[in-house]
Amino acid sequence: MAANPKSKKAYASAGVDVDLGNRVKSGIQALVKGTHGPEVLGKIGGFGGLFRPNFRGMKDPVLVSSVDGVGTKLKLAFMTGRHDTVGQCLVNHCINDIAVIGAKPLFFLDYIGAEKLEPKVFQQLLKGFSKACKAAKCAIIGGETAQMPGMYQPGEYDLVGTIVGVVDRPRMIDGSGIRPGDIILGLASNGLHTNGYTLARKVLFEQMGLKLSAKLEGVTGTLGDELLRVHKNYQPLLSTLPAGVVKGLAHITGGGLVDNFPRVLPKNCDAIVDTASWKIPAIYKHIERGGGVDHAEMFQVFNMGIGMTIVVAPRDAKAVQAKLKARVIGKIEKGTGIVRLK
Amino acid sequence: MAANPKSKKAYASAGVDVDLGNRVKSGIQALVKGTHGPEVLGKIGGFGGLFRPNFRGMKDPVLVSSVDGVGTKLKLAFMTGRHDTVGQCLVNHCINDIAVIGAKPLFFLDYIGAEKLEPKVFQQLLKGFSKACKAAKCAIIGGETAQMPGMYQPGEYDLVGTIVGVVDRPRMIDGSGIRPGDIILGLASNGLHTNGYTLARKVLFEQMGLKLSAKLEGVTGTLGDELLRVHKNYQPLLSTLPAGVVKGLAHITGGGLVDNFPRVLPKNCDAIVDTASWKIPAIYKHIERGGGVDHAEMFQVFNMGIGMTIVVAPRDAKAVQAKLKARVIGKIEKGTGIVRLK
Repeated sequence: MAANPKSKKAYASAGVDVDLGNRVKSGIQALVKGTHGPEVLGKIGGFGGLFRPNFRGMKDPVLVSSVDGVGTKLKLAFMTGRHDTVGQCLVNHCINDIAVIGAKPLFFLDYIGAEKLEPKVFQQLLKGFSKACKAAKCAIIGGETAQMPGMYQPGEYDLVGTIVGVVDRPRMIDGSGIRPGDIILGLASNGLHTNGYTLARKVLFEQMGLKLSAKLEGVTGTLGDELLRVHKNYQPLLSTLPAGVVKGLAHITGGGLVDNFPRVLPKNCDAIVDTASWKIPAIYKHIERGGGVDHAEMFQVFNMGIGMTIVVAPRDAKAVQAKLKARVIGKIEKGTGIVRLK
Repeated sequence: MAANPKSKKAYASAGVDVDLGNRVKSGIQALVKGTHGPEVLGKIGGFGGLFRPNFRGMKDPVLVSSVDGVGTKLKLAFMTGRHDTVGQCLVNHCINDIAVIGAKPLFFLDYIGAEKLEPKVFQQLLKGFSKACKAAKCAIIGGETAQMPGMYQPGEYDLVGTIVGVVDRPRMIDGSGIRPGDIILGLASNGLHTNGYTLARKVLFEQMGLKLSAKLEGVTGTLGDELLRVHKNYQPLLSTLPAGVVKGLAHITGGGLVDNFPRVLPKNCDAIVDTASWKIPAIYKHIERGGGVDHAEMFQVFNMGIGMTIVVAPRDAKAVQAKLKARVIGKIEKGTGIVRLK
């Protein structure tokens, strides 16, 4: 009794096409090949991805791992039919989340859940993952694509990424060295990155009735372009700094400066952030005004133009600022572990 | 300008309740604590989970990683309001996927994507993850819960898990030692595990019009009980075998015996599986008959009662069979790398 391809009718008519899944996946190898260094053993298609880590030169290697999605930025991909940036956003978001501890990425795994696999969409997503991983010297060693009819809307999908990286324990960054008087630097974000899209879409499309092709004052390109910009990966830039200079890093994601910065603040320090010290990008002003959103809430939903914060000692501020093209956005004062926006 | 909790109206009215998210997550620490050994540094709530691996005694440690979901088994959780088993299923599915290479689990990360967080559901899911991880001596070091209004149906969610484990390279199991004459053993599954639910639901609920409370001939408990049984974790059992005895392992998931076994078969070997050598559980007969599903297709959609296959040399078969309470279900013959069902 050989399995007969012609007989796979029941599963397909229930909405799961195993053959389609296999056909779609057959192109993966070529796409992810460019992300593989000698550490990657075996190949995708086995049950687990194999990675032989090289911890040479490390005293006490610690694995650092994080899982994330890109939220409803996906809706922008669905609306525009452009699926090439969200995969990059996911990889870069994950890498930043471990970079704040001082870790460099080793490998990445992706999950795509969808109502039905669309080969063209799948290829674009994989291209995005591959492009970002290649740029970050991070290997894609696994992935799962799940066809779940009745779970997702037709043409929609969710993306989930997991990153695993490594940091040498003596070089781990945890904010514990932060002291009153330290300087807060900010690195510019590239648009909304991957947070606040539910509110942004509601305000821009529902309340303001804007189209994807809209041109807004102060915004480069169309509204669609602006909202699909790729989440920046700050790790390559941060890795250029000498060990020991950075006291604390915060990746400004969901919860904004207000919720993310305290993750690295000692309990007896506050972060005083001067919101006039950088130019808040125009898109946020449109959202704030168009939606009548409270100014304070804007800073708890969006990155407001700052994608990563860096705390350094006063003596290091100038050199780090110049090297990273960062901006001084505030300072550390005695306090209770919160962010105070000025 | 302090962030004012009363002002977080815009985001909440767009469907994302940041405070609810924070409240729900505040219970995580206690739930996952039981999964943490001394390898886990820091705590959940930071940006990345920290794991200090102990590779003592290993010659050449290789990290093995896999990502997966539980498919539309989730729909059963939604239908019954029982969310305590699917989290366990996810953990165990992931662990089996790396166990087939010989790896033991180190840590796990979960993702829950939902329309809105329901604290009670979230707690049940986390309890499931924790229970399975604790039993498997695997640490939960990270997770993400995404509220995505308009992506998921009200009351629904998707689950994704990523496992990272380790195997000593000389002990890696890859099927390359499989030879004609070798014996195929099978380990019993515990129900459908996490595959074939889209077809099973269509046949049982739509075509046959059955209720969750239905009692089917030969099925223990209700239909709801049967479909929510926990995916078995075979790793603890497999780890009791002496090194070098197992030549190849296949976790029978989506694609069934037909698609999964070939992943470990050398190109010049076929797996001859005698489908009369074990009692196919009653649930599959009900699905096959009720849906008029081709018998061959059943073996490409469901595990049909075998959750894991083990290839051993004839001289080892008896001892392994006795130790694992496995069943001889076939043998290896010269061939072209496929499964032939008899």
